[in-house]
Amino acid sequence: MNLHKRQSSIVGLFLGLSVFVLSCESSKVLVYPLHGSHWVNMKVLIEALHSKGHSITVIRPSSSLYVEEDPSLFTTITVNDGIENMGEYLTEHLNEMMELKRGEKSVLTFLKIQWNFFPVISYLHLVACNTVSKIIEDKELIKRLQDEQYDLFLTDPAMTAAVVLGRYLKLPLVLNARWITSGEGHFAIAPSPLSYIPILDTGLSDRMTFFQRVKNSLFYAMTLFQEKFVVGPHYKALCDKYFDEDCDIVSFLQEADIWLMRLDFVFDFPRPTMPNVVYMGGFQCKPAKPLPEDLEAFVQSSGEHGFIIMSLGTMVDSLPADIADEIAAVFAKLPQKVIWRHLGPKPSTLGNNTLLVNWMPQNDLLGHSKIKAFVAHGGTNGVQEAIYHGVPVLGIPLVFDQLDNLVRIQTRGAAKILELSQLDGQTFEQMLLEVLNDDSYRTNMQRLSSLHRDQPVKPLDSAVFWIEYVMRNKGAPHLRTKAYRMPWYSYHSVDVTLFLLSTAAVLTFTTVAFIRWVCCRACGKRKVKNE
Amino acid sequence: MNLHKRQSSIVGLFLGLSVFVLSCESSKVLVYPLHGSHWVNMKVLIEALHSKGHSITVIRPSSSLYVEEDPSLFTTITVNDGIENMGEYLTEHLNEMMELKRGEKSVLTFLKIQWNFFPVISYLHLVACNTVSKIIEDKELIKRLQDEQYDLFLTDPAMTAAVVLGRYLKLPLVLNARWITSGEGHFAIAPSPLSYIPILDTGLSDRMTFFQRVKNSLFYAMTLFQEKFVVGPHYKALCDKYFDEDCDIVSFLQEADIWLMRLDFVFDFPRPTMPNVVYMGGFQCKPAKPLPEDLEAFVQSSGEHGFIIMSLGTMVDSLPADIADEIAAVFAKLPQKVIWRHLGPKPSTLGNNTLLVNWMPQNDLLGHSKIKAFVAHGGTNGVQEAIYHGVPVLGIPLVFDQLDNLVRIQTRGAAKILELSQLDGQTFEQMLLEVLNDDSYRTNMQRLSSLHRDQPVKPLDSAVFWIEYVMRNKGAPHLRTKAYRMPWYSYHSVDVTLFLLSTAAVLTFTTVAFIRWVCCRACGKRKVKNE
Repeated sequence: MNLHKRQSSIVGLFLGLSVFVLSCESSKVLVYPLHGSHWVNMKVLIEALHSKGHSITVIRPSSSLYVEEDPSLFTTITVNDGIENMGEYLTEHLNEMMELKRGEKSVLTFLKIQWNFFPVISYLHLVACNTVSKIIEDKELIKRLQDEQYDLFLTDPAMTAAVVLGRYLKLPLVLNARWITSGEGHFAIAPSPLSYIPILDTGLSDRMTFFQRVKNSLFYAMTLFQEKFVVGPHYKALCDKYFDEDCDIVSFLQEADIWLMRLDFVFDFPRPTMPNVVYMGGFQCKPAKPLPEDLEAFVQSSGEHGFIIMSLGTMVDSLPADIADEIAAVFAKLPQKVIWRHLGPKPSTLGNNTLLVNWMPQNDLLGHSKIKAFVAHGGTNGVQEAIYHGVPVLGIPLVFDQLDNLVRIQTRGAAKILELSQLDGQTFEQMLLEVLNDDSYRTNMQRLSSLHRDQPVKPLDSAVFWIEYVMRNKGAPHLRTKAYRMPWYSYHSVDVTLFLLSTAAVLTFTTVAFIRWVCCRACGKRKVKNE
Repeated sequence: MNLHKRQSSIVGLFLGLSVFVLSCESSKVLVYPLHGSHWVNMKVLIEALHSKGHSITVIRPSSSLYVEEDPSLFTTITVNDGIENMGEYLTEHLNEMMELKRGEKSVLTFLKIQWNFFPVISYLHLVACNTVSKIIEDKELIKRLQDEQYDLFLTDPAMTAAVVLGRYLKLPLVLNARWITSGEGHFAIAPSPLSYIPILDTGLSDRMTFFQRVKNSLFYAMTLFQEKFVVGPHYKALCDKYFDEDCDIVSFLQEADIWLMRLDFVFDFPRPTMPNVVYMGGFQCKPAKPLPEDLEAFVQSSGEHGFIIMSLGTMVDSLPADIADEIAAVFAKLPQKVIWRHLGPKPSTLGNNTLLVNWMPQNDLLGHSKIKAFVAHGGTNGVQEAIYHGVPVLGIPLVFDQLDNLVRIQTRGAAKILELSQLDGQTFEQMLLEVLNDDSYRTNMQRLSSLHRDQPVKPLDSAVFWIEYVMRNKGAPHLRTKAYRMPWYSYHSVDVTLFLLSTAAVLTFTTVAFIRWVCCRACGKRKVKNE
């Protein structure tokens, strides 16, 4: 491929901001997505790549949740991973985790949750690794994948296994990333001082007291333990089986050409990063479309008071009935209208102003001029949409990164957090009224919205640019440091420090010894003389 | 200022890449430039800001080199710093440094150069600090600067003093940066492991042997010594005089909203960075304009052989006569034509194919289709222009960062370096012929050129966007970590580590003591029983 040929035009000044626009031949992209809400994100990228004329193949383990075939967008290769009821298995464990969180919130609760979750996380990684192993062992399939000569391998590294397949196929690698086993994606590639970079599920910000920093370090040790001993062995086994070089779960990740991070620094706290990280936080956000007629009528009936929406995501079953009743009773007292995505039995205290729905056009509602607040569980997608549309949030974090997402907007004064362990009617009412009536939440969220929109290139366009960049240039090794390959003692200059200290010690010792010897000789002579 | 009002339009899809385009009201920018080649860079930004309708005021110490008034572009405030002959002073010391480099190249030479240069660097910072102090003490001038209510303070941090004025005026701060006292600009803000980040003037790359890492650490210690003890006291004095809080040379720099770095990762080695760093390497590069008629005729007369240009920058006097003679003799043997910017006496061996000039349109020559090679001293501007136009380089580094710049392109196989200590006719001829005849140099440089041009936004437009961003949003504190304010032992978690180790030690000791006590009691009882 000759870049100069494909460099169709350099667009001149355009309203004061000119861009290099490089065309990219139609290419073949192999996508290995993760399921659940991660698939929602990946599909946005797939749609964007498809609209640019690239052909896409998706590898779909048979137990994947939500990953449906869509021949108009992509070719699907379904791999039978022999797992049944993955959804039930996950829901059961998430509910258990949520139940634990309803108890008192303490460091011990976290450690207990983490400890209980180790077998689950180990099982999930084992299943993922076995699936990759199955693909490699299936001679016909792996030959088909090799013969296709894809230009790119695109995956989500929250479950690293797929990355191993990309490396086996020797394809340029782009990650659509937020989490890895040891926390947020940067932990695999960028220096991450624990003194100001909070660990997943600690609920800490970038400004910590001494004991918060102690807590942060302990939590990091736990995630490191998980990485090294709970899931690490599955990857070591894959490495020993299929690769000649030394590798582990982290080194697989460090080979990525570009990390498309699903965050930006309007949302996240500032932290060290690397040249091969591209921030595409909010890439899935888009302007609101008009609502269906009945929903628009309901929303308009709220008059000047406006409306609230509540949704706690799709991964966890409905709230316990007692809590749902208390929430419904609070809603019933409000002058606002409420649209509540609620799957469980109808609360007995439901007011006339509250509409229960199975599904809602969340983005279109968040972008509606009458919206006043968003009661949310704090999933990344929802929080990013709230930022994009400038809607203040009352967050009820359930599992995973939800607390962390909410802490980020709470720190900016754009949200309140109501933890499961504190959740009852009274605190819910008090916090909701604060978010509704204290203008600062709305003002702060709208400032975040302005900042988020104030970018030289839209996040989705940036993501597509860098994916095409990797395809055009057959990788991006110049943006990736090779320093990760150094032994830890060299990387951290422990060897150099010890060498310099020893040299200094030897020099000092020799000098002192020499001076003493000279002095002694001088004294000795004087003594002899005096005698 | 309401961002939404100013958000004039979101430009739709434009050849597949859409950009948010935000207008920015005409604003007032206060620029405090550094002189010499740094001014060349700053003027490019000033021109771009002027073309966007912003009004610019430039503070110009009277001894500044090259910083000329230009009322069509900016208002000038000249501050009499009472220094005469700054140019001669600098040239004298640079020639002395160059003379030292002509001797054997060794660690000791470097240390000697560095040691000799300490009084010079201290004097330059002292002059700069005194000038800032003069401005603050001049009640009329400082009132005028305060009353103007500038929207931004733009400066080059290689001489930190100007930053102090920006902070005194409490203005949002953007740095047009490459160097600070302790090396490359990142050293003030981003983690910079010495194991793979080479220090200024070491000539090292990002892959070092053990002893190269030792050398790198020693050199860093030297620059740190310079920062703390040679120039640091001047800044401490300014801090004590004009600010209530604790500050030093580095903390002044850490307050910057945005660092516009004059590099990118096509040029530099990958390294950790921060969210408030914007890379604008090559922002000054532009397509070649047609040459003056006589020069075009000379260049065309080279036929298929093409031509070479040679320029060693403006800061150092001409090469010693013996070396100039040897170089001219080599040029005379070549089938290529040569254009040589040479200020000293005409070499006795000059061939007919060589044209001596006082000045050349370097960018237009580098962008000419017949150019074959660039013999350069390795200044950032020249190297960036060579990358932009894809012209292979034979580098003869003289002083400052020139060796480091050249090492970066040599590592990519796009240049050869001929150090002053090795420079004679034979090595010059051998290396020049290699660069001319071995196609890989050209191919590699053209690959760098392609990569450099493959960016979502042109570097200069990106720079202007972020300058206007800081003005629109009255700063960018969300992109800047506050972690720098932590004490070093907290930042590096030394306190937490000691606390955790002590706790572990106490727990172990208590447990062991308890077990011993239980065992002893058991033994004691048994003894008593047995007795």
